[in-house]
Amino acid sequence: MSKLQPIITLITDFGTQDGYVGVMKGIIAGINPSATIIDISNTIEAQNIFQAAYVLNSSYKYFPKGTIHVVVVDPGVGSERKILCLKTADYFFLAPDNGALSFIAAIEKSHSVLEVTNKEFFLPEISNTFHGRDIFAPVAAHLSKGINHKKLGNTIDEMQKIDLPKPIRSTDGVLTGEVIYVDYFGNLITNITGKTINRIKVKSRKLVIVAGGEKIHTLSNSYTDVNDKEVLAIIGSTGFLEISVNKGSAKDVLHLKKGDKLVLGYE
Amino acid sequence: MSKLQPIITLITDFGTQDGYVGVMKGIIAGINPSATIIDISNTIEAQNIFQAAYVLNSSYKYFPKGTIHVVVVDPGVGSERKILCLKTADYFFLAPDNGALSFIAAIEKSHSVLEVTNKEFFLPEISNTFHGRDIFAPVAAHLSKGINHKKLGNTIDEMQKIDLPKPIRSTDGVLTGEVIYVDYFGNLITNITGKTINRIKVKSRKLVIVAGGEKIHTLSNSYTDVNDKEVLAIIGSTGFLEISVNKGSAKDVLHLKKGDKLVLGYE
Amino acid sequence: MSKLQPIITLITDFGTQDGYVGVMKGIIAGINPSATIIDISNTIEAQNIFQAAYVLNSSYKYFPKGTIHVVVVDPGVGSERKILCLKTADYFFLAPDNGALSFIAAIEKSHSVLEVTNKEFFLPEISNTFHGRDIFAPVAAHLSKGINHKKLGNTIDEMQKIDLPKPIRSTDGVLTGEVIYVDYFGNLITNITGKTINRIKVKSRKLVIVAGGEKIHTLSNSYTDVNDKEVLAIIGSTGFLEISVNKGSAKDVLHLKKGDKLVLGYE
Repeated sequence: MSKLQPIITLITDFGTQDGYVGVMKGIIAGINPSATIIDISNTIEAQNIFQAAYVLNSSYKYFPKGTIHVVVVDPGVGSERKILCLKTADYFFLAPDNGALSFIAAIEKSHSVLEVTNKEFFLPEISNTFHGRDIFAPVAAHLSKGINHKKLGNTIDEMQKIDLPKPIRSTDGVLTGEVIYVDYFGNLITNITGKTINRIKVKSRKLVIVAGGEKIHTLSNSYTDVNDKEVLAIIGSTGFLEISVNKGSAKDVLHLKKGDKLVLGYE
Repeated sequence: MSKLQPIITLITDFGTQDGYVGVMKGIIAGINPSATIIDISNTIEAQNIFQAAYVLNSSYKYFPKGTIHVVVVDPGVGSERKILCLKTADYFFLAPDNGALSFIAAIEKSHSVLEVTNKEFFLPEISNTFHGRDIFAPVAAHLSKGINHKKLGNTIDEMQKIDLPKPIRSTDGVLTGEVIYVDYFGNLITNITGKTINRIKVKSRKLVIVAGGEKIHTLSNSYTDVNDKEVLAIIGSTGFLEISVNKGSAKDVLHLKKGDKLVLGYE
Repeated sequence: MSKLQPIITLITDFGTQDGYVGVMKGIIAGINPSATIIDISNTIEAQNIFQAAYVLNSSYKYFPKGTIHVVVVDPGVGSERKILCLKTADYFFLAPDNGALSFIAAIEKSHSVLEVTNKEFFLPEISNTFHGRDIFAPVAAHLSKGINHKKLGNTIDEMQKIDLPKPIRSTDGVLTGEVIYVDYFGNLITNITGKTINRIKVKSRKLVIVAGGEKIHTLSNSYTDVNDKEVLAIIGSTGFLEISVNKGSAKDVLHLKKGDKLVLGYE
């Protein structure tokens, strides 16, 4: 079935107003009318490659095998930056070579990367500013029709990487993590996983998380474990520790943003 | 045809940025590639159950028979709150038991309600914070494949309700209503129906509506019945009296919000 | 293939919150479950007909032949304004008679226009305020099922037009253009085409563009031709000269808006 009705997903910073995403869909539908197109996010902050990489990382594996994930957050459009096609056992990924595929490359140990150069699969005219329309959309559509991805270009060995900052454990066992993502609800998603918390747990001592001046003494199982507008800590849907506010925004209450530190220890 | 190409609609407060809605669609496509997914609204205000209930109420009946309407505005996610499957003659509705289905239950006299408990139709791992992905999406997808909804769980007799405030008629015939919804254009949608206005009409006397300090003396047939930026009253597309401004926002001009009162009488 | 799986595109000012667009899709799916619906933009500024016309103009030709483009930016809804069906060799366009189809009519020399009046293809009840639901959606769906468009109503000879302002060339060769569109990235799209610039080029002299107090001396091939946060000029994806800022917003840096002038000459 996935052969007949392949899925193409979109992550872009194109916004919803100007029709840029609609145009990409028109191109795809013209080349492969059977493709199903699913928006993951078209409101990535302009030029925010890290955010695109994070959203891709938290989304990609919930799609059927054979899905083609397309990321067009592309401040270098029109320059000499490469366009990549990364293949894993289950998926294809198309993105500019700017770090957007970093987390995928780190997680999916067995992958190969091509530089997309074969103009046979591009639109006939390539603009300076909209490769989403002129290259990414037609290439994704052709991939979804089952062309051999090796036709897109040659294998390359290196790609641009951005790092997910790792939490740091001090000698006294205190873990210093940081906020890596703030979602639409104002949840503060950190780089500390639930697995790490379990591993460093000290049975006889009580957990304490210090974030934005607040002390949190327990991991909640639901937002409503605390009163309305109170701060809580919870293992979120991607497996990371999140700082949240029940029926409110932790971002607004704690005034924390991406990159700000938090500390997890035991009393 | 609706058997082969069932429709699943989405009403959520997930926003468009983080990929949460895209992930739900990925899960659905993996289980039922033939399902058509239609967004009704993914920008319900965070945790605003009333708004979700209102939008569902004004939308659901314009979809083909067999449509599965999914509402995930779910501040109680991860707690003991139930998940409901409400069935009417024409539709299925999936929502947390928090009032989101109140207006449907009130209008659709002949309906049955199940508590969704059968983990066979959930994802294998259930997070604390994202039942849209882990429960609602897979359950909707399985429903769209034609499983008997009775397999989802047992019938229940009670559900959480929220009330649509009713207009109050005083002994002198004056009707006091209120704003129940403010739309994207700034139209102020009230709880007074066109039918009610017709019923209480006094032939020899002149209608007067007082809202936000403005007196309106007629029901318009189109926004352009009045000059640009002028206030008007009109029976809107859902049958309710709306206060609007021609080529402007009644919300901005009258400074009224949800819950604010207006008065309808006859001079 | 396009007969079996026709495409309907949407350009509206309905926003994403209230479910208005979802309802249109529900109506279409009920009449033609095989239609593919693609959003071009549902966040056109309220009542901004020029913006809708611009977005349509920059998008429509990237869709497959047979696509039905629907524009519902309709401040005159419920009044005597006509509803148009414009047919070109490749496409159908449905829109209120308010100028939204002006640029299409100007570009597509060979076109015919009908006034849509045949209630057979409307919903049974027509509201005063939501013809997107009651007329545009069902008419588009019936068109997508292959009904002869001549059944919709009678041919008309005149329609409302809005003008795209033309750049003005002074006797000394200086070209005065203006900003016609500001996109989500803050790019300032002008009414000067790359073709015009090539035509008036003076080989021995150096190009200079003056916009918002900045002098720009070259056309860039990519945003990254200049340093971060620097202003540049580039021929954009629709063939027009655009003023942009590398990794920034020209709108914010230059404080220019739609209608503001810029000057292109040779030193």
